[in-house]
Amino acid sequence: MLCAAGAPVLQAFEADSVKALTFDVFGTVVDWRSTLIREGRALGRAKGLDVDWPAFADAWRDGYGPAMNRVRSGQLPWKTIDELHRLILDGLLEQFGIAGLDEAEKDQFNRAWHRLDPWPDAVEGLTRLKARFIVASLSNGNVSLLVNMAKHGGLPWDAVLSAELAGRYKPDREVYLKAADLLGLEPGAVMMVAAHKGDLRAAARAGLRTAFVPRPQERPNRQIDLAVDGEFDVSAADFVELARQLGA
Amino acid sequence: MLCAAGAPVLQAFEADSVKALTFDVFGTVVDWRSTLIREGRALGRAKGLDVDWPAFADAWRDGYGPAMNRVRSGQLPWKTIDELHRLILDGLLEQFGIAGLDEAEKDQFNRAWHRLDPWPDAVEGLTRLKARFIVASLSNGNVSLLVNMAKHGGLPWDAVLSAELAGRYKPDREVYLKAADLLGLEPGAVMMVAAHKGDLRAAARAGLRTAFVPRPQERPNRQIDLAVDGEFDVSAADFVELARQLGA
Repeated sequence: MLCAAGAPVLQAFEADSVKALTFDVFGTVVDWRSTLIREGRALGRAKGLDVDWPAFADAWRDGYGPAMNRVRSGQLPWKTIDELHRLILDGLLEQFGIAGLDEAEKDQFNRAWHRLDPWPDAVEGLTRLKARFIVASLSNGNVSLLVNMAKHGGLPWDAVLSAELAGRYKPDREVYLKAADLLGLEPGAVMMVAAHKGDLRAAARAGLRTAFVPRPQERPNRQIDLAVDGEFDVSAADFVELARQLGA
Repeated sequence: MLCAAGAPVLQAFEADSVKALTFDVFGTVVDWRSTLIREGRALGRAKGLDVDWPAFADAWRDGYGPAMNRVRSGQLPWKTIDELHRLILDGLLEQFGIAGLDEAEKDQFNRAWHRLDPWPDAVEGLTRLKARFIVASLSNGNVSLLVNMAKHGGLPWDAVLSAELAGRYKPDREVYLKAADLLGLEPGAVMMVAAHKGDLRAAARAGLRTAFVPRPQERPNRQIDLAVDGEFDVSAADFVELARQLGA
């Protein structure tokens, strides 16, 4: 275990055993909340809407877990995250009293999730890590969302992996195992990087290594467990620090 | 239709309708034959083998279609191309009288397919095309092979797509449709780029646009139909010329 504060790096034999890093994306690589608020405000100005956009962004994200559970329970057939985001959006437009958007405007707003901005350290850190490791997304976002986001933000993925390729959502075990399989690696040669402990705990149960990168600005208005307490193989304050710790 | 020789480019409305280019890889992006011959010769020197490595490389590649057909016919369960390459390799080692390779050496040689060198224009052309389009592999090579090859050769894919993700091999229709689906695009917004007419014909039947980039050095010892005769939407002598034609 490594702490963000100290100087220790992974033992050489440990870092050498890791061949690929797989990254959670929403919140870990990109700042979904700020981008959604900004896009909401732009839409509001264009359409003359008076909406609490931070509350709207939070509600959109909060709808995501329950929507996935409707698929897990069989209440809904398999849906991509684009489709789940749209399902939630349609409900929120009603709930927030937003009328007057045509289909193209709704679709464009739903695709704000394709245009999320990276955290300031993300591109530099990924670029450094890519020199030593395979760097791949491993998000519940569908492949097209992740490809478009990478082009928007300049994210230098070696591979765009997604829960979509397993037909399951994280934190279901199959998603992590499918990623290792597609990379041709044993689970222990893959390190999951995330700002969310639940994602890392599920990855660890599937046999992956884990790196915790807390993102206190993801939801500054919520109490979230961001304590660095040695539960994961590595903890780092950001991706540049992670690269340093992993010798990249 | 465009010819490689002339100056005409795609009509603006046509180029604008294409959002992604998907590339055949073996022979179109990388020069499998030269790399296999070089790796074979290096192995031969190390192990004191006297082998006709060009013939060996040709035989390895020639085994690939029949091996895929054994899967298509149900004679074998689904196998990745790594697994098919290994199946063929084991037969060829016997056929060419090559003994004395241990398991690690066989595996290392089989992974020569992960280390194929790009054609000289490939990286520059892909980099230019990437500025305007999504550029993705669409190969029968499995994802890990393609990811490793991209790192080896510096291929700047936006997405590593593979027949593996459809659980079918090209030229089966499902592979092309799966790629468009994963990119979130209609088939007509995707252009398949290949040096092989059969691949392009199958892509066209699935609704994709087509770009023919003949590679006369792929198999200089074989008669292959490389005539540019207007069958495909675009034809170009290499990827840099393709980028020019597509306004990238």
